Amino acid sequence: MAGGEQKKSGGGGKKKEVKKETGLGLSFTKDENFGEWYSEVVVNGEMIEYYDISGCYILRPWAISIWENMQTFFDAEIKKMKVKNCYFPLFVSPGVLQKEKDHIEGFAPEVAWVTKSGESELEVPIAIRPTSETVMYPYYSKWIRGHRDLPLKLNQWCNVVRWEFSNPTPFIRSREFLWQEGHTAFATKEEADTEVLQILELYRRIYEEFLAIPVTKGRKSELEKFAGGLYTTSVEAFIPNTGRGIQGATSHCLGQNFAKMFEINFENEKGEKAMVWQNSWAYSTRTIGVMVMVHGDDKGLVLPPKVAALQVIVIPVPYKDADTQGIFDACAATVATLSDAGICAEADLRDNYSPGWKYSNWEMKGVPLRIEIGPRDLANNQVRAVRRDNGAKTDISRASLVEQVKEMLDKIQQNLFDVAKQKRDACVEVVKTWEEFVTALGQKKLILAPWCDEEEVEKDVKARTKGEMGAAKSLCTPFEQPELPEGTKCFASGKPAKKWTYWGRSY
Amino acid sequence: MAGGEQKKSGGGGKKKEVKKETGLGLSFTKDENFGEWYSEVVVNGEMIEYYDISGCYILRPWAISIWENMQTFFDAEIKKMKVKNCYFPLFVSPGVLQKEKDHIEGFAPEVAWVTKSGESELEVPIAIRPTSETVMYPYYSKWIRGHRDLPLKLNQWCNVVRWEFSNPTPFIRSREFLWQEGHTAFATKEEADTEVLQILELYRRIYEEFLAIPVTKGRKSELEKFAGGLYTTSVEAFIPNTGRGIQGATSHCLGQNFAKMFEINFENEKGEKAMVWQNSWAYSTRTIGVMVMVHGDDKGLVLPPKVAALQVIVIPVPYKDADTQGIFDACAATVATLSDAGICAEADLRDNYSPGWKYSNWEMKGVPLRIEIGPRDLANNQVRAVRRDNGAKTDISRASLVEQVKEMLDKIQQNLFDVAKQKRDACVEVVKTWEEFVTALGQKKLILAPWCDEEEVEKDVKARTKGEMGAAKSLCTPFEQPELPEGTKCFASGKPAKKWTYWGRSY
Repeated sequence: MAGGEQKKSGGGGKKKEVKKETGLGLSFTKDENFGEWYSEVVVNGEMIEYYDISGCYILRPWAISIWENMQTFFDAEIKKMKVKNCYFPLFVSPGVLQKEKDHIEGFAPEVAWVTKSGESELEVPIAIRPTSETVMYPYYSKWIRGHRDLPLKLNQWCNVVRWEFSNPTPFIRSREFLWQEGHTAFATKEEADTEVLQILELYRRIYEEFLAIPVTKGRKSELEKFAGGLYTTSVEAFIPNTGRGIQGATSHCLGQNFAKMFEINFENEKGEKAMVWQNSWAYSTRTIGVMVMVHGDDKGLVLPPKVAALQVIVIPVPYKDADTQGIFDACAATVATLSDAGICAEADLRDNYSPGWKYSNWEMKGVPLRIEIGPRDLANNQVRAVRRDNGAKTDISRASLVEQVKEMLDKIQQNLFDVAKQKRDACVEVVKTWEEFVTALGQKKLILAPWCDEEEVEKDVKARTKGEMGAAKSLCTPFEQPELPEGTKCFASGKPAKKWTYWGRSY
Repeated sequence: MAGGEQKKSGGGGKKKEVKKETGLGLSFTKDENFGEWYSEVVVNGEMIEYYDISGCYILRPWAISIWENMQTFFDAEIKKMKVKNCYFPLFVSPGVLQKEKDHIEGFAPEVAWVTKSGESELEVPIAIRPTSETVMYPYYSKWIRGHRDLPLKLNQWCNVVRWEFSNPTPFIRSREFLWQEGHTAFATKEEADTEVLQILELYRRIYEEFLAIPVTKGRKSELEKFAGGLYTTSVEAFIPNTGRGIQGATSHCLGQNFAKMFEINFENEKGEKAMVWQNSWAYSTRTIGVMVMVHGDDKGLVLPPKVAALQVIVIPVPYKDADTQGIFDACAATVATLSDAGICAEADLRDNYSPGWKYSNWEMKGVPLRIEIGPRDLANNQVRAVRRDNGAKTDISRASLVEQVKEMLDKIQQNLFDVAKQKRDACVEVVKTWEEFVTALGQKKLILAPWCDEEEVEKDVKARTKGEMGAAKSLCTPFEQPELPEGTKCFASGKPAKKWTYWGRSY
């Protein structure tokens, strides 16, 4: 795509020269060295700064503004569902943390412990929350007495810490990250089941409508579900370049496991003692990493207009002898017109950089639309719009500026999704046998296979595919199931298949 | 005030009975046992739940919604000033933390240290941020190269940890708290000085316009300024019941001290190497505690309408044989009308509580305005409005509902401020001698005294007033200075006074 644009514009050679001069541009390509490309693009795009503690990253304003745009949407939606925000402490005492056995087994190796304050040893070490089930639920037990106290629906926006040692990656796998975590309690399983899917739909919308990333809704296997929960649903994305699935966000039904451990009981309408049904659900700053991986290209970030802090960058192109002041005024007027219409626009009027340098700079930062204004545009009362996603150039009359820019931003948003979906879909491979599975895995496919749904079989698949690249595992059983003809066998065990499940390597 | 209302309404006796029956109401009074009253009111008002780790508190939705209302205001204001939000890690490595000597001396005793993850000892202990100067500034050094990179204005909304051992108090002094911290760098001291005051003005507005609390803007003494900074300005509130001042929020000019330590240099317009001027500024969830202390009464919380999650509670009063459905419909219609006008209103239609119980319940929670609808109101197409701040009752025609409710909410907001200011002003005592000072301190006054502005003298004041209640110290030197006649002597040292300064005990 990028190459095509350079040829068409005729300015490719010049731009490359500028890149050399200024040190702009990326040293790695997305196709040839994805990992290095990713690290470079999040840093050069000014989303991330590496920090002096491994696995911790600085989220720069360019990243946080995307986070805030998603937060504005999600927070309003859950408030409509009567979820209320709260804030529970960062710290957990060890006794409480260890109360739910399966849960703590899942998290224990990654828990960071505070053992000292100032020069004094603490009497008891204190854990930093890796998630807040055990922080919150002792109080749910206290607050919930009768059926009128239900449902209880709380959410918090906070940081959590998981001291992982494997492959820290900005946004995707970091020792501290930002997220929201919702924790709800209901009188009946039906209500809990319903909410699990309502929240999952919001997560789908965050990915598909905001981040322009196609995701699959489905259910996690027993092996992959949340530690201590009843079942886990998720939205799953896929990174074609690495052939890895990535869990986008999860909405868990915890069943009554935690309610039992934390004694969260209530008197129901008949006056009988009953136990609540619980959910927990979360999405994190990982979303931003998936967005970079899916849309970014060899020129840098590509931001979907709906989450971009800056949707339009206006750049003056004052050739020599041109009416520079007139051009600058036109830039300012363009920004004002767009801003008044609710479009986030800025002009880059810096006098120490060339237009070409600025093009590269804002391409690196992924701004969806660039508007150039030169002498010819001034004369014709027009501006030139250049799309970041496909490089297409259009002359726009200043009379219809707002209308056309809005339309272009919508088209960019849609096109990013369409292209991402096309690429993702092209990776899907339906397999029926172990041989086909191994071949598809080697080809970095997103594998859809009939499965017997037995935990031991998944363990076996993991064991048999172990290697340098990491083992394959189930990603999710999609809610939209293709037909499963009677007699279909599990790709791995040969036993009767119960469902179609996505498999692959994952982040 | 509360007593007066009960007599007037004639329902006081009944209400008390209800309280006894249901266990509603407070066991302590604000005047007689302020500390216990405060703990009880934040818990019974459902702002706080005590947590099983001392000094950590659960912020319940009733508190977080106030926090969010202030945040919406402040975040929009600083964005207008071109401040951008970011997020730096929770963790700091020891080397960086200790770089600014005065700064670390101020914070070291309160720093919490992570030394373990899972079962493994960390190679180097890692500190949890008590504030983020040392977390951020190594990167300011990296990002700032030339004058065009300035000003750099960042802010983050986050949690910080100060492991204090003295008197933890919800909101006021907790080991973890939420705040925003702004960190800015400028080319010139003038720009930094200007911003210090712009931010301080926003803090004044949070207190005076949102929380309806009068504050004094001023400058901290050398002894009380931010560790490592050049000078500190603050807004100072006062709690008449305890006679203690409380630092409401601080806006620091850090000068070039941190710039020197962290080598934050830039090339100025003349091509010379120069050092930046820095500010940092913060307000925290402490604001909410000050609000509770200032406005709360013996019936519970009193929330200013501009920060209240719920501004109006509508309660049906269906005497027997009344048209219950008609009353319920009128309640629902009232909520709908108010909500459409942007007023936060809800109806309490629970059938298992009496109207009297509900009155007490929502008074405890501090909802600014109660609307009662009974058979007579229904017949007259009116509602009865009862103000939380002064108990005044007004019948409002449903035809002018929105208009009158808006006006009443404005009046409540103003009245809360006026009453608080009157009480605060009544505590101010101007003293000129040590004897007057000691007497005023014993009377829990907010003391304004002429001072020589010498650090040793403040230390001496502290030493001489040490005791069970805590030592007196300077609170601030107000920007609005009364006239200081020539020859005025310092109240403590007898040396020539340089300024008027507020003194007292403080939180």
